[in-house]
Amino acid sequence: MAVVVPFEKDRASIEALVGATRADMDRVNAMIISRTGSEVTMIPEVANHLISSGGKRLRPMLTLATAALAGYQGEGHVKLAAAVEFMHTATLLHDDVVDESDMRRGKPAARMVWGNEASVLVGDFLLGQAFKMMVEVGSLRALDILSTAAAVIAEGEVMQLAAAKNTSTTEDEYLAVIRGKTAELFAAACEVGPVIAERPKAEQAAARAYGMNLGIAFQLVDDALDYGGKSQKLGKNTGDDFREGKITLPVVLAFRRGSEQERAFWKKVLVDGAITDGDLETAIGFMTRHGALTDTIERARHYGEMAKDALALFPDSAMKDALVQAVDFCIARAH
Amino acid sequence: MAVVVPFEKDRASIEALVGATRADMDRVNAMIISRTGSEVTMIPEVANHLISSGGKRLRPMLTLATAALAGYQGEGHVKLAAAVEFMHTATLLHDDVVDESDMRRGKPAARMVWGNEASVLVGDFLLGQAFKMMVEVGSLRALDILSTAAAVIAEGEVMQLAAAKNTSTTEDEYLAVIRGKTAELFAAACEVGPVIAERPKAEQAAARAYGMNLGIAFQLVDDALDYGGKSQKLGKNTGDDFREGKITLPVVLAFRRGSEQERAFWKKVLVDGAITDGDLETAIGFMTRHGALTDTIERARHYGEMAKDALALFPDSAMKDALVQAVDFCIARAH
Repeated sequence: MAVVVPFEKDRASIEALVGATRADMDRVNAMIISRTGSEVTMIPEVANHLISSGGKRLRPMLTLATAALAGYQGEGHVKLAAAVEFMHTATLLHDDVVDESDMRRGKPAARMVWGNEASVLVGDFLLGQAFKMMVEVGSLRALDILSTAAAVIAEGEVMQLAAAKNTSTTEDEYLAVIRGKTAELFAAACEVGPVIAERPKAEQAAARAYGMNLGIAFQLVDDALDYGGKSQKLGKNTGDDFREGKITLPVVLAFRRGSEQERAFWKKVLVDGAITDGDLETAIGFMTRHGALTDTIERARHYGEMAKDALALFPDSAMKDALVQAVDFCIARAH
Repeated sequence: MAVVVPFEKDRASIEALVGATRADMDRVNAMIISRTGSEVTMIPEVANHLISSGGKRLRPMLTLATAALAGYQGEGHVKLAAAVEFMHTATLLHDDVVDESDMRRGKPAARMVWGNEASVLVGDFLLGQAFKMMVEVGSLRALDILSTAAAVIAEGEVMQLAAAKNTSTTEDEYLAVIRGKTAELFAAACEVGPVIAERPKAEQAAARAYGMNLGIAFQLVDDALDYGGKSQKLGKNTGDDFREGKITLPVVLAFRRGSEQERAFWKKVLVDGAITDGDLETAIGFMTRHGALTDTIERARHYGEMAKDALALFPDSAMKDALVQAVDFCIARAH
């Protein structure tokens, strides 16, 4: 029996991007495996625990896609894409230590198996390997972009740390955090494509703008999903941010729009960490009352449109279409 | 009244190196301050807590000295030296989290003031800034050397983690750990001097060999000092390694040379962590009985001589003399 897939859903698929980058991604995956190798067996064990745990590898796909979009003919995009994934993996390993997370991608976090020590150090090893790969590619401009991203990501994470439990965080402050901790790597991953293809500055800036706005949209949707998304269905990761007292946009909006009584609730749960049974449901109820989740998704849609518009500079192609669909996919996750 | 300084003591001074690099180190220090700046105020706070805590800055001095030794005339050595110090600082911040240290350089460790989270993330920020500075210098070969060092350092630290509490660690395994975690950065810091001066490979290799052997000697002396050094006087950091169950050369030697009864003691304290009052003194007693500390210093002297011989390639100069004296200084710390 044929399954009828509605048009909109079809357009919001990652499959076009996966298909268009598949051949190169096979090479990236081989590179990733070879570069986690070490005589110190704990290193590939820890690295592969996370790397093989089924992430989508969206970021390296973006590097491959923007390189192709820019007509790149060389070999450097494979190493840069692997470097981008290593930077992301290093961030996740360190984040788990910072957030004291027990789980990651449905598996025990590496720190629960090998300890915080190994998570910190293997993250450092992967960062070192990432830079080695970039150096091998030999583009100083790509090195500049990705080393700047490394510093900006850490800066965004520290900013988040400083803003933790601060319910008076503004939407602008929240945006500054997610630009740093999430969107910067998307932006850098996309920018290096036209850079190694030696395309004009305007194309480099366009690819960067696509990545930056996609990254913001991606994180906004993630933050909404942590409260069940637009449908407010409770998924397996629902409530992680809530329990950690993270101030994300749904909280920022619900807090600002809430009554005095509601604000007292938010302070009790997020600042004092005094969470009791039913508090997550209460929080989602307040968010629903004030449209905090639907508006978070609306904001994501806004940045998603900016991402798509940024691509206008590039001639129409299957790869451009795949990148447009990837934006819709990231946003459609919230439904 | 004049103070008579004995000749040998005079030869074992860091002052010649400090003097010969002073003008450049002022620029390195200014660079360090400017590159820890961030609108996220926690970053300069954490970074400067450690950076301003009175480390000798031996590693950046080595970069400046080897660049001068190689006749370098440009400006890149200042940024590379600052990058080397940032890599070192990032390692210290992460080490404190890994070792759960309370103190560092006589002050509370950053993680005790700002938490593990900030130590991990500010370390990542400094690594990113280090790479940015290297990219600005523009030497792909120097980038290659220092990014390789970043990966090797992390590898050495993981190796140490895997060897922790393993009393059957061999001297070779111990040497592999300290080559990675300590000597590699000394080697890289020295190698980049002739590299940016575009001197022949032989000079680059000689500077690297000087740094590698100096680094090994430096760590051996550090490990002996942790048990009071050759004089077995108990200093303020005495016993840190002992309490953490770290298997350093003094332990390797004392364990191998010890009786069955002594080995049972080492297993009780280092593997089981069952340390009671007087155990550190007992440990030092066993080390003294078997000459483990004096032999550790002897080994350091051996690597120190190799470091000095590596410099033979360079014509005699005040800078070369200062580098030779720095070797003797590192070893004389143990007395």
